[in-house]
Amino acid sequence: MINVTIWNEFVHEKIHDEVKSVYPEGLHKALADGLNGEGFAIRTATLDQPEHGLTDEVLDSTDVLLWWGHMAHDRVSDEIAAKVAERVRGGMGFIVLHSGHFSKPFKRLMGTSCDLKWRVAGEQEIIWTVNPTHPICDGVDSRIILEHEEMYGEFFDIPAPDELVFISNFQGGEVFRSGCTFTRGAGKIFYFRPGHETYPTYYQPEVLKVIRNAIKWAHPARNAKQQFGKSEPVRPFGGVLV
Amino acid sequence: MINVTIWNEFVHEKIHDEVKSVYPEGLHKALADGLNGEGFAIRTATLDQPEHGLTDEVLDSTDVLLWWGHMAHDRVSDEIAAKVAERVRGGMGFIVLHSGHFSKPFKRLMGTSCDLKWRVAGEQEIIWTVNPTHPICDGVDSRIILEHEEMYGEFFDIPAPDELVFISNFQGGEVFRSGCTFTRGAGKIFYFRPGHETYPTYYQPEVLKVIRNAIKWAHPARNAKQQFGKSEPVRPFGGVLV
Amino acid sequence: MINVTIWNEFVHEKIHDEVKSVYPEGLHKALADGLNGEGFAIRTATLDQPEHGLTDEVLDSTDVLLWWGHMAHDRVSDEIAAKVAERVRGGMGFIVLHSGHFSKPFKRLMGTSCDLKWRVAGEQEIIWTVNPTHPICDGVDSRIILEHEEMYGEFFDIPAPDELVFISNFQGGEVFRSGCTFTRGAGKIFYFRPGHETYPTYYQPEVLKVIRNAIKWAHPARNAKQQFGKSEPVRPFGGVLV
Amino acid sequence: MINVTIWNEFVHEKIHDEVKSVYPEGLHKALADGLNGEGFAIRTATLDQPEHGLTDEVLDSTDVLLWWGHMAHDRVSDEIAAKVAERVRGGMGFIVLHSGHFSKPFKRLMGTSCDLKWRVAGEQEIIWTVNPTHPICDGVDSRIILEHEEMYGEFFDIPAPDELVFISNFQGGEVFRSGCTFTRGAGKIFYFRPGHETYPTYYQPEVLKVIRNAIKWAHPARNAKQQFGKSEPVRPFGGVLV
Repeated sequence: MINVTIWNEFVHEKIHDEVKSVYPEGLHKALADGLNGEGFAIRTATLDQPEHGLTDEVLDSTDVLLWWGHMAHDRVSDEIAAKVAERVRGGMGFIVLHSGHFSKPFKRLMGTSCDLKWRVAGEQEIIWTVNPTHPICDGVDSRIILEHEEMYGEFFDIPAPDELVFISNFQGGEVFRSGCTFTRGAGKIFYFRPGHETYPTYYQPEVLKVIRNAIKWAHPARNAKQQFGKSEPVRPFGGVLV
Repeated sequence: MINVTIWNEFVHEKIHDEVKSVYPEGLHKALADGLNGEGFAIRTATLDQPEHGLTDEVLDSTDVLLWWGHMAHDRVSDEIAAKVAERVRGGMGFIVLHSGHFSKPFKRLMGTSCDLKWRVAGEQEIIWTVNPTHPICDGVDSRIILEHEEMYGEFFDIPAPDELVFISNFQGGEVFRSGCTFTRGAGKIFYFRPGHETYPTYYQPEVLKVIRNAIKWAHPARNAKQQFGKSEPVRPFGGVLV
Repeated sequence: MINVTIWNEFVHEKIHDEVKSVYPEGLHKALADGLNGEGFAIRTATLDQPEHGLTDEVLDSTDVLLWWGHMAHDRVSDEIAAKVAERVRGGMGFIVLHSGHFSKPFKRLMGTSCDLKWRVAGEQEIIWTVNPTHPICDGVDSRIILEHEEMYGEFFDIPAPDELVFISNFQGGEVFRSGCTFTRGAGKIFYFRPGHETYPTYYQPEVLKVIRNAIKWAHPARNAKQQFGKSEPVRPFGGVLV
Repeated sequence: MINVTIWNEFVHEKIHDEVKSVYPEGLHKALADGLNGEGFAIRTATLDQPEHGLTDEVLDSTDVLLWWGHMAHDRVSDEIAAKVAERVRGGMGFIVLHSGHFSKPFKRLMGTSCDLKWRVAGEQEIIWTVNPTHPICDGVDSRIILEHEEMYGEFFDIPAPDELVFISNFQGGEVFRSGCTFTRGAGKIFYFRPGHETYPTYYQPEVLKVIRNAIKWAHPARNAKQQFGKSEPVRPFGGVLV
C-alpha cells in the first residue's frame, strides 16, 4: 500500500469557467479518480485548507506527494514550502506536475529559477520516451500524443536531471525535457510536464499510466537513516581525535 | 584574463593561534599567492568588509568566485548569500572549498542539507582521479596524497554531481566524493574537499594546480542570454495564441 | 517470479584447493543457495556445458543473468559473448560480479578496457552507500565491512556510470566505484565489485542482500518494443518522402 | 595548435549527382574549409586511401578526429575500426557526425546498436541548447534552424550521454538528442546530428561554430598516464601480497 497525497492549489477551477468545465471538481479530484486502483491510498489537499492541508499528520502518513499549482504559488506559505522540501529530503516521494515547476518547494529543491518558455495556443504535443528501461515507462508506448496542450520550451532552467525519461515536440517548433528525475537527500523527485488546466490531459490514460508508474518509482526505499557529524574511525589508525 | 575573487570568512586565522601559525595573513592570502601567474586577476574579499566585500561592483567584475567559510556561515547575510547564488545562476563560476559545503550560497544552489561525517585526527587523505579526461585533472597526477587532513565521509548529502572527478580515501576507513561539478542556470560550480584550516593544504602544489584548472573550467562561456516567458512559435502552425 | 540464471566459469573451484575449500560446489552454487527465497526461479550455468550453458532456450527464459568469471574469460566463445551482449540490449538484466569486469560481454557493452588496479593481500574493504535513495540499497546499512578482500583500485576504466551507488575504501589507500549502474538498449546492468574467489564474501548476508536488490532492479520493464528505421511523420507537414 | 583529421568515406559525392552538386569536392573538403582559421592544423583522410588514410603516422599526430560515413560503413576494415576506437580510449578526441552514428568505431565505443528512426523529406529541424554552460555552446545562439534536413528520431539507442547539449525538433513531430558527449578511457567523444549529404548543412555558420567548439572541447587533457594491474599499497598496512 502506497500512501499518496495529491495537492492542488484549486483556484482556477473555482474562478475560470473554462477550467471548471474541464475539471468541475478540481484537478485533484480528476487525478484521484484516475489514479485509483493500484494499491494506492489516495488523499487530496488544497491551498485553502488549514496549513494548506499539509499538516504534520498528513505528511507523516504520505509516501508520495503530487503537486499542481499555477496562479497561487505565492499564496503557499514559506513555512509549508520549507516543510515540504524538508520532507522530500527525508524520503517522501515528490511528483511535480506541469506549472508546479514554479512552485516554492520545487524551486527550493532545484536551486535554480526553473524558468522556461510557454505559449497557450492549443497546439499538439508529442512526448517521446528516451529511456525505455526506466520503470516510469513500464507499459507506456514509445510516444504519447496530446492533441491540445500548452507549449513549454527550452531552455528549462533546471539542474541536469539524473535521468531524462521523456522529451516533448511541440508543433510550433520547441522541445522540452518533459520527464526528469532527481534525488535530494533520501527523496526521489519526478517532474512531469503535461497538464494545462484548460485541456483534459489528466483524463488521458497514458498520462495517468505515467503518473502511476512514477508513484511506484518514487516510493521511498527502506534505507538505514544516514549518519552525519563527528564520527569515530571505522578502522583505527592510531590518530588522536581533536 | 580571468577575474578571480577569493572570499574567505577570515575568522579562525585571527582568533586561533594554531590556524594563524599556518595561514598568518589568512587562507585567502595564501590562495591568492599560490594561484598567481596564469593570467588571473586575483582579488580577495572577507566577511568583515562592507557587504562582506561582495558589492555589486566586485561581483560585476568577477568571472569566478572562490569560497572558504566555516565557523561564521551564519554571519553571512541572507541578502548577500542570495545575491551570490543569483550571480552563479547568471554565469559566474563558483568554486566551493572544504567547509564551504555548509555555506549559505552552496546550500541554496544544491537544494540539500550538504551534511557529511567529519573527524579531525591528522589522518592521511589520498585523492584519486576517477575522470582523467576532465580539464580539472589536466596535468594532475592520478593521486594526490595529503599527509594530514580532516576527514569528510559519505554519505555527503548533495545532488548526484554532473561529473565526479575525485574520490578520497581516508585512513580511518571512509570515502568521499572530493571533486564534484554541477551547473545551475548559466553557472558552473566545482566543489573541492581539501583545506582544513589547521593543515598547510593550500600550499601543496597539486592542490593549487587543481584549483587553477577549476578556475579555467568554471570561466563562463559566452552564451547568448536565454529567453524565458511567453514565446511566439518558431514554426507557424495556424494556432491562435490565447 | 523473476527468472535468474547464475553463470560461473567454475574453474578455480576445481583446480585450486584454497578456492575449493571456500566454495566446494562452486561460487554459483553458493550464490544460488544464498539468493534463494524471494520469488526468484534460480538456475546455474557454467563454462564447460554445451554453449557454456547459455542456449537460446535458457536465455529466452532468463530475466536477469549474473556473471562471475576470472581466469577463463578467453575460453568464452565470441559467439556466446556476442549473444549475451545482444540479449542484454534486448532487455535482459545483467549483474556483473567482481572479476567479471574483464569478461567479454561486459567489455562489449562498456566499450572500454575495463582495466583497474588490483592486489590480493587480505585487506579490509569498507563499502559505502553514496546513493541512499536507490532501490539497490533498500534495507542495506550505510556501510558494509568485508574483513578480507582483494583490492580493486581506481582508475577503473569504465564509462561514467548512470548511477554511482557504492564506493569502496581499501586499507592500502585505494578507492573504487564498487556499485555502478548502466543501461544499454532496453537492458539494465549492475556492476558489483566484491567477490574474490579465496574469500567467503558470497556468504555474507549484506552482500547477498545487495545482489537480491539488484536482481529486482534489473528485472526488465514491460516496454513497448522500440521502432527503428524509415518512419512516416507523426504530424503531416506537406513534405515529400524521398 | 590542435591537429585535426577529418575522415569522410567520400562515396556519395562521387556517384550521386545530387550530392556532388552540394559538395563537389567532398564533405571533408567543405568541412576543412569551413573549420579553418582557429589554430587548427587540418588534414583529411578518406576510405579509398591506403589504410583508409588512417595510418599510425596520421593517428599519432591527430588530436581530434572527425568522422562522416554512411553508405560504406561496412567497407571500413575491422582492423582500422578497432585501431580508431583504441586511439580514442587512449585520448584522441572523436567527433562523430550525422550518419556516423552507425560507423564501426562509434558502435564499438558505445556498446549499443546506435539505431534510430529516419526520414528524408526536406523538413525543418530546430536545434535547441539545453546546456548553455557547455563550452560546445560558446557563442552559439539558443537555437539553430536548418531549413531542410533529414529527420532522425528517438529512440536513439545510445547509452545515456554524460552531457546532453542539444535537442532537435523536427517538423514531422519527432525529437532527437542531437548533441551528446561521452568519455571512453582518456578520450572525449561528441556526437552531433546534422549533416545529411544532400543538404548544404556544413556551410551553415552556426553548425561550423558548434564543430569548432567541439574540437577545442575534445582536445585531450595532458593527464598522467593511468596505471593498471598489480599495485603495491600506497599506505602500508602489514598485509602480505599473494
